[in-house]
Amino acid sequence: MSNPIDDLLRQLRQFRDERDWAQFHNPKDLALALSIEAAELNEVFLWKKPEDADPARVREELADVLLYAFQLADKYNWDIPELMREKMARNAEKHPVRRAADLP
Amino acid sequence: MSNPIDDLLRQLRQFRDERDWAQFHNPKDLALALSIEAAELNEVFLWKKPEDADPARVREELADVLLYAFQLADKYNWDIPELMREKMARNAEKHPVRRAADLP
Amino acid sequence: MSNPIDDLLRQLRQFRDERDWAQFHNPKDLALALSIEAAELNEVFLWKKPEDADPARVREELADVLLYAFQLADKYNWDIPELMREKMARNAEKHPVRRAADLP
Amino acid sequence: MSNPIDDLLRQLRQFRDERDWAQFHNPKDLALALSIEAAELNEVFLWKKPEDADPARVREELADVLLYAFQLADKYNWDIPELMREKMARNAEKHPVRRAADLP
Repeated sequence: MSNPIDDLLRQLRQFRDERDWAQFHNPKDLALALSIEAAELNEVFLWKKPEDADPARVREELADVLLYAFQLADKYNWDIPELMREKMARNAEKHPVRRAADLP
Repeated sequence: MSNPIDDLLRQLRQFRDERDWAQFHNPKDLALALSIEAAELNEVFLWKKPEDADPARVREELADVLLYAFQLADKYNWDIPELMREKMARNAEKHPVRRAADLP
Repeated sequence: MSNPIDDLLRQLRQFRDERDWAQFHNPKDLALALSIEAAELNEVFLWKKPEDADPARVREELADVLLYAFQLADKYNWDIPELMREKMARNAEKHPVRRAADLP
Repeated sequence: MSNPIDDLLRQLRQFRDERDWAQFHNPKDLALALSIEAAELNEVFLWKKPEDADPARVREELADVLLYAFQLADKYNWDIPELMREKMARNAEKHPVRRAADLP
């Protein structure tokens, strides 16, 4: 039985290796690529009200962010849901419930 | 039976609602928050060789990026593995195999 | 007698007003536009050694960053050299000389 | 006779050299530092209406962006007003007047 995250990572590795791109994928440049895609995501919203951004473009740019985020996690051999759960636990400590009026 | 992505989304929604933060989570500011976390991720690598960045800090900042990326996808009710697979298919068209010497 | 910064600001205001763009230029979106240009600047260096980036492209993207930075300062009616000198003084306090081995 | 931009550049060089930081200031990391400061600038506006951001913090983060932008230009020995004027001329070609209803 497979799970969707492992399937995606397998495909990402294959995609990279077929193109011989592992040589470029050091973690510093992967993080840089991720932040460039994050800026392209932000560009979809630029000069606009949140609801006026084109969802098809949001979807595509968000996908690029996620693809680099997954590849960076994979570079370090990290389990993605685990690192997310770990950070959520930390965030819960930093922002205890009942301070609803604080900014997020 | 549950899957890890749905579990994470459920916890993220609960975390947000317990703090009454849905009011802040419009897609434009979620995308902005994501790009700010992406910059914090990049800061771990600033002035350093890729291998000299502290993995514990990379892990934490990458988690923040992923948490906002998941929340943004959830805002639009998108299936995360599906939007990633869709973009990978598009990228495969844009970058056909056998052009290994091109930059990624 | 004119100075180059005032001349640039005058031209930027005229450029904006001829196109009726003042309506878009709230400080939040100007800051967002600036960070998007900063990402385009970073893209020139992506997957490369610093010395392999194309200077002509660096120059152009850096100019876009500066143009938005000047417009944001102008939005608040700030004197640009003054705000820079002010921050340099603060940085000098934060990073006293003689700690040369620290990271910047 | 001095001009304010040359004075700032002189001070920035002195600040850097007193701390022995020239070794870190390759153009790739300077561009990265600039984009990290741009994200800190954006953070002042996060989850807020444009008019609710604290001007004192905007001023400080914008100064950091400008300080890195000036240092990057100086790294390439570029004249700052000149590269800005050059880009404004290009932008005027790309966005001819009389298309006021277009997005900037």
